[in-house]
Amino acid sequence: MPELSQRITTLNGDGSDGWEVFYRARAMKEAGADVIELTIGEHDIRTDPAILRAMHESAMGGHTGYAIVPGISALRDEVAKRIEAQSGVPTRRENVLITPGGQAALFAAHMAVCNPGDVALIVDPYYATYPGVVRSAGAVPRMVATRSSHGFLPERNVLETASEGAASLLINTPNNPTGAVYPRDTLSDIADVVTVRDMWLISDEVYDTQIWDGAHLSPRAMPGMADRTLVIGSMSKSHAMTGSRIGWIVGPEDAITTLVDLATNTTYGVPGYIQDAALFGLRAGPELEAKVAAPFLRRRAIAERVLAGQNVVRAIPAQGAMYVMLDIRGTGMSGDAFANALLDAHGIAVMPGESFGASAAGHVRVAMTVDDDRFEAALATLCRFAAGRAEAA
Amino acid sequence: MPELSQRITTLNGDGSDGWEVFYRARAMKEAGADVIELTIGEHDIRTDPAILRAMHESAMGGHTGYAIVPGISALRDEVAKRIEAQSGVPTRRENVLITPGGQAALFAAHMAVCNPGDVALIVDPYYATYPGVVRSAGAVPRMVATRSSHGFLPERNVLETASEGAASLLINTPNNPTGAVYPRDTLSDIADVVTVRDMWLISDEVYDTQIWDGAHLSPRAMPGMADRTLVIGSMSKSHAMTGSRIGWIVGPEDAITTLVDLATNTTYGVPGYIQDAALFGLRAGPELEAKVAAPFLRRRAIAERVLAGQNVVRAIPAQGAMYVMLDIRGTGMSGDAFANALLDAHGIAVMPGESFGASAAGHVRVAMTVDDDRFEAALATLCRFAAGRAEAA
Repeated sequence: MPELSQRITTLNGDGSDGWEVFYRARAMKEAGADVIELTIGEHDIRTDPAILRAMHESAMGGHTGYAIVPGISALRDEVAKRIEAQSGVPTRRENVLITPGGQAALFAAHMAVCNPGDVALIVDPYYATYPGVVRSAGAVPRMVATRSSHGFLPERNVLETASEGAASLLINTPNNPTGAVYPRDTLSDIADVVTVRDMWLISDEVYDTQIWDGAHLSPRAMPGMADRTLVIGSMSKSHAMTGSRIGWIVGPEDAITTLVDLATNTTYGVPGYIQDAALFGLRAGPELEAKVAAPFLRRRAIAERVLAGQNVVRAIPAQGAMYVMLDIRGTGMSGDAFANALLDAHGIAVMPGESFGASAAGHVRVAMTVDDDRFEAALATLCRFAAGRAEAA
Repeated sequence: MPELSQRITTLNGDGSDGWEVFYRARAMKEAGADVIELTIGEHDIRTDPAILRAMHESAMGGHTGYAIVPGISALRDEVAKRIEAQSGVPTRRENVLITPGGQAALFAAHMAVCNPGDVALIVDPYYATYPGVVRSAGAVPRMVATRSSHGFLPERNVLETASEGAASLLINTPNNPTGAVYPRDTLSDIADVVTVRDMWLISDEVYDTQIWDGAHLSPRAMPGMADRTLVIGSMSKSHAMTGSRIGWIVGPEDAITTLVDLATNTTYGVPGYIQDAALFGLRAGPELEAKVAAPFLRRRAIAERVLAGQNVVRAIPAQGAMYVMLDIRGTGMSGDAFANALLDAHGIAVMPGESFGASAAGHVRVAMTVDDDRFEAALATLCRFAAGRAEAA
């Protein structure tokens, strides 16, 4: 076999992808063990049948040929309308590219703004694929460290230092894995630094319908930022359409025009019937989105109640998204050791904070993706387990 | 707006994408003109309803969550079985990555084997996106010129010269736009050159079910070539599933393993219900594929009959795929001038050969994608038009 490209053989950085606990839990489950998976961000409901029926109607109606690469006009218009209503920023069809999922949107955005070798900033802790996305685009990830005690929000002085010579900054609000929702002050600091450095901001807002405290603010709405921000959106989390792989990039028209060229060569568009299904989903209005988000809001209340009854595990306030981040440093264990020990002792799988970057060491991320009773029981077990470990330490 | 990456702003090379005739025809049609489009490779039938019903059953059955990134095992197995049966090369699940379409497969393959700045060979004439695919991966396209008089087959001496310092060679058999099906001798020359140079071969075989003369041969079956060949496949042409965006890469297991890492960061898989639909389509067997291919075989016979009645336009023998390539140099016109004049005079849109590379100058590509009667009438008109131009010249 001839050599593979350097890019593709170095995607995983140090070679560890931090998903050992996840894979081990899956293997135990397949071997018949009773494992509660609180690992990945997948709803415990499926896509609404009404959306699937709309998809089938579109397909049987003949929408099975090539859809135009930028996305069908009706869907681009609907996304533009939604983003404009949410952010107040004038947004038209020409500002929108439909992509085969948020992941493809993240990759395309970095391809558009980073030259090979450019530094691309990532806020740590981060969603698992972020460093690989940057490396896939030939750029070099550089971490913006945050502090658990500061709610994992990026801080101005850290941003100023890290942004020296960087081409882009990737943020995620509401945040996976921390549950943080960036407040206006944080977004203002980000906007200042990004503007001074003449950088691009890539703003992953796929959890924008899952806000438990306050409101979602898009940095694209900050003064001057519409010209340097690419917003990543998706139907995955808002409409439980994870498997349908449909998302979008919203940005300056000139950037979207070149992104359409890139899409012509790299994806050639998104199935027309899935776009019709997404259009149906968006037009179904906020009730459907609230229905999809409701279980996480309920379980967040459960988590608050369970955690209030002990003082070993400290919760980072979950203001949005599908997760609670727990500080387990009171046990004297690393997140990795804790997650593995919890899985072995109780068949409960959570993600080690270290999987999401050095800033989340000594934490675990708990996905709120099993039914309320099992979730409550699992979290109570986790707390008792932590208390036992803290005593033993 | 900060600068965009150099890669994305130079995707179109000299800035001309050769699709002016196509866009002009579409605009005329939208304005109400009676235009016969013989431009793009899209069937005049739609995806078989049985396939769409299988998709709907899968979706309603709950296959709407994240599908595993390499593709569902049953589909990978089915593709492996198909490729092994066709080529005789032992092929397993681990040799197969399911991709969101053949275009995404072409891009990923180049990402896997080309470093930024590497030279990637393309046989000219070529499918429209090939140079953009190479540029999207940060590599530099270099053309392997072919001759109309040699059936547009790549020739050994040309390959030997062009391959100096190249990382990869992209071929397409059956060929779009020429209709050529590469014979064993050509594949043998290709295998020799690629092996001596220690290059990768990327073999686009998406038209493998549309063979009118002889049989499809995959270069992966040549001695030693399974270790250095990435085969691109798709359901688009074989099953009229163009809009469903589902394809695959078949190659050495180590290459596929890294390509799964790339897919994790750049696409995160393919909708599970589309994979189930593809599985249904592949299992439906050769009858369905023959039904999808039949119109092109019929129209090829029509083309032969119409062209036999004149001697200004010379047809390149169409041995496969959905097109006939016509040498119109007898008119004294370029392909571009001819296509534009034909559209203006008769409302018939064909693609200028120049859109597919310098080697196809003085040719036009005719897609056999309208019903038999209209196809016959359009081709007869084209021939009369060419005769008139030849007389005037």
